[in-house]
Amino acid sequence: MDLKKCVRVIEDFPKEGISFKDITTLLKDGKALKYAIDQIVEDLKDKNIDIVVGPEARGFLVGTPVAYALEAGFVPVRKPGKLPGEVERFEYDLEYGSNILEIHKDAIKPGQRVAIVDDLLATGGTTEAAIKLIENLGGEVVSLQFLIELEDLNGKAKLEGYHINSLIKY
Amino acid sequence: MDLKKCVRVIEDFPKEGISFKDITTLLKDGKALKYAIDQIVEDLKDKNIDIVVGPEARGFLVGTPVAYALEAGFVPVRKPGKLPGEVERFEYDLEYGSNILEIHKDAIKPGQRVAIVDDLLATGGTTEAAIKLIENLGGEVVSLQFLIELEDLNGKAKLEGYHINSLIKY
Repeated sequence: MDLKKCVRVIEDFPKEGISFKDITTLLKDGKALKYAIDQIVEDLKDKNIDIVVGPEARGFLVGTPVAYALEAGFVPVRKPGKLPGEVERFEYDLEYGSNILEIHKDAIKPGQRVAIVDDLLATGGTTEAAIKLIENLGGEVVSLQFLIELEDLNGKAKLEGYHINSLIKY
Repeated sequence: MDLKKCVRVIEDFPKEGISFKDITTLLKDGKALKYAIDQIVEDLKDKNIDIVVGPEARGFLVGTPVAYALEAGFVPVRKPGKLPGEVERFEYDLEYGSNILEIHKDAIKPGQRVAIVDDLLATGGTTEAAIKLIENLGGEVVSLQFLIELEDLNGKAKLEGYHINSLIKY
């Protein structure tokens, strides 16, 4: 199945000059959703994943079915103020300004094997932040899985040394 | 499996007097996550569901694995400005102020059979808004599925006439 055909490209969203990759057209197609998740699961199934981590909010859409299919746990990485328990936080720079991500301190036990699953690998900033949060808790980041990778932005450079799999490339 | 034991209750979050039901402790437990999703899937499997709709953001966590397991499509209902395509929007009143939810206009075809899946049934306002959005697009809302129901808030009264299933009750 050619998953790229299931993604809708919308120009100038959320701002001028950005060519937005809209995955909602893939998600609403039951066969495409099943196929995409199964591709990620296939790549992860022999890696003994304990926990799938997904960043808010689109990472939830891809990460939870992967966790379910692997019978692994799912842990959300969220924006500040959303998680009710005690959190570990990480602040990182964006092109303009900065961003903060949080994870529950008791979300991951030392030594647990973790896959990060997200919709998009762009500059890699969010993934790098998620890696720091997981490693600060003692988790081992075993694999990074993306529905889409924007190769020109070279996010892979930031994530050197980690196993990366992306299903659709632009 | 007693799913209620997997939910952590945190008092006074997000504000004083609220007894917050934290589902992250359930999600991070792979067996509990699998069991919970399978319970919802069991209730939906003979209802010929074409589309699962999940409201942002915690509805994504429960809705996408259900869609995956049913081999149905998933459609997000989101806060304003998040969906890149043309949207249908619905504004509704909250205890203080109001809220707006959006759905892509081409997300659901007339006659498609839809299940709404969310983490929590409280006053029912969000679910009622999602129903309006789906029905405005010509979709048929066949079932409402919740991980948790707060019975004292009587959300069911707002949702009369619809099939409701909730796994954990407070």
